[in-house]
Amino acid sequence: MYDVAIIGTGPAGLEAALTLKIRNKSFILIGSKKLSEKVYKAHEVKNYLGLPNIMGDDFMNTFLKHMDTMGIEITEDRIAQVYDMGDYYALQGSKEEMYEAKSVIIATGVTMSKPYAGENELLGNGVSYCATCDAQLYKNKEIVAIIDSMDELDEVHFLAEVASNVKLIPLFDNNLNSNDKITVINEKPTEIIKNDKKRIVKTDNNEYNVDGVFILRKSVPMSYLIYGIEMDGNHIKTDRLMKTNLRGVFACGDIVGKPYQYIKAAGEGNVAALSAVSFLDELRRNN
Amino acid sequence: MYDVAIIGTGPAGLEAALTLKIRNKSFILIGSKKLSEKVYKAHEVKNYLGLPNIMGDDFMNTFLKHMDTMGIEITEDRIAQVYDMGDYYALQGSKEEMYEAKSVIIATGVTMSKPYAGENELLGNGVSYCATCDAQLYKNKEIVAIIDSMDELDEVHFLAEVASNVKLIPLFDNNLNSNDKITVINEKPTEIIKNDKKRIVKTDNNEYNVDGVFILRKSVPMSYLIYGIEMDGNHIKTDRLMKTNLRGVFACGDIVGKPYQYIKAAGEGNVAALSAVSFLDELRRNN
Repeated sequence: MYDVAIIGTGPAGLEAALTLKIRNKSFILIGSKKLSEKVYKAHEVKNYLGLPNIMGDDFMNTFLKHMDTMGIEITEDRIAQVYDMGDYYALQGSKEEMYEAKSVIIATGVTMSKPYAGENELLGNGVSYCATCDAQLYKNKEIVAIIDSMDELDEVHFLAEVASNVKLIPLFDNNLNSNDKITVINEKPTEIIKNDKKRIVKTDNNEYNVDGVFILRKSVPMSYLIYGIEMDGNHIKTDRLMKTNLRGVFACGDIVGKPYQYIKAAGEGNVAALSAVSFLDELRRNN
Repeated sequence: MYDVAIIGTGPAGLEAALTLKIRNKSFILIGSKKLSEKVYKAHEVKNYLGLPNIMGDDFMNTFLKHMDTMGIEITEDRIAQVYDMGDYYALQGSKEEMYEAKSVIIATGVTMSKPYAGENELLGNGVSYCATCDAQLYKNKEIVAIIDSMDELDEVHFLAEVASNVKLIPLFDNNLNSNDKITVINEKPTEIIKNDKKRIVKTDNNEYNVDGVFILRKSVPMSYLIYGIEMDGNHIKTDRLMKTNLRGVFACGDIVGKPYQYIKAAGEGNVAALSAVSFLDELRRNN
């Protein structure tokens, strides 16, 4: 049981980790060892105070070096869902891993992808975001899996072990090959329709009639990730101390709103971490 | 007329300047070329993301180098008062300099010094924070000047030109010498009292009967600096976009509240600057 689980390894999550470290809290930092696309693909950044004219790999490596100096490790995983267990939170990872923490800092960044027509309506009704959670519902059945990066391939292989056949739609340039369980389809999905017991995935070229549809994105929609969290459009609503409406849950970085800027995200990560520290201190006083 | 005047050269003010620079706004950055005491006296800072284990002079020089890279200059001055001129703001410097700007970013840090007994009550009634503004009221009269750093000595010399005699109380270790116009008194002030037309400054050792008292601190109380600004205790009240209750006035860093952390201040400086940019864009659209 960790004091804090940090979801996300952009500047907000990293800064939260640094601050929790110097405050001697136990935590797990969950995300990618490549940190965040917005960092390693950054063009010249001129206004991150203290790092003049930094970009891309240098930016990433500077942050990684800082983590290293402080002995902070990144757990490579993608959180599919966060469950409120009453006095702690359980976080469902993508590889059947479950993490437990007294408080949670959400620093996932903001998802730009729009849901497909029918996606929201059919979620939990033939459409799923979580292979680990729902694969067993499709034993020996046919499914479509839509993925937006290579990182989600492990989950596709897991789905292929359970289902009879997986139609894989990668949303990026790839050299993926089909095999006896996985058929790679390089088309653009446009809509998901319910038709009696089947779900139909329409693409720009075809229609696929299957039993279930898995949409595996780098980040899942927030309202799905953590039940009951108060949003303001695409953003999690927080106060100035980065508190959300859920007890022990804090948020920072792009996911809480504009401007989408590195130093703003880092600053908020610091505040979220210190608010989590206050929350933990309060928990201890009350026990 | 500048687009923006930034008051303060801690991380919040510096980051605001960087962001205004890349957004092509004209601005003046007013403060100290030594930046801020909290930066150059910093012990090892471990959680400023991107600058592992940085401290003191290194911290200051890293920031100064960034300003240099971007061609940003610091105007060494201390703002005594900000006046709302209707469609712009006028900023009273300490050396009779007046600056004009369409919007203001307050990044002064938070003042820890408590007012002396009687100070608040007698402000504007024999007690002044601004040599430039009020010296002429004490032509050929006797005054006490209380200063908290060598930076305010210029103002004391200006007062000595006007007044018949200045009793100077420096609140720091010093080797200052008295001359025919200035008497250096190394005592601790405790209270200011009104006695008919005179003001009495009480110290731990003596009482000084004078006509006026100048209290010159690195930062003046916010309610005096800018009339009508909404406070929350010692802090300026802002929303998440760093807007204050005054149109075109933004605030960031320690002055808007805890935690008092470098990276939090920098992040807020970024947000304040971008909010000022939006404000300026709006001004232009409406004209």
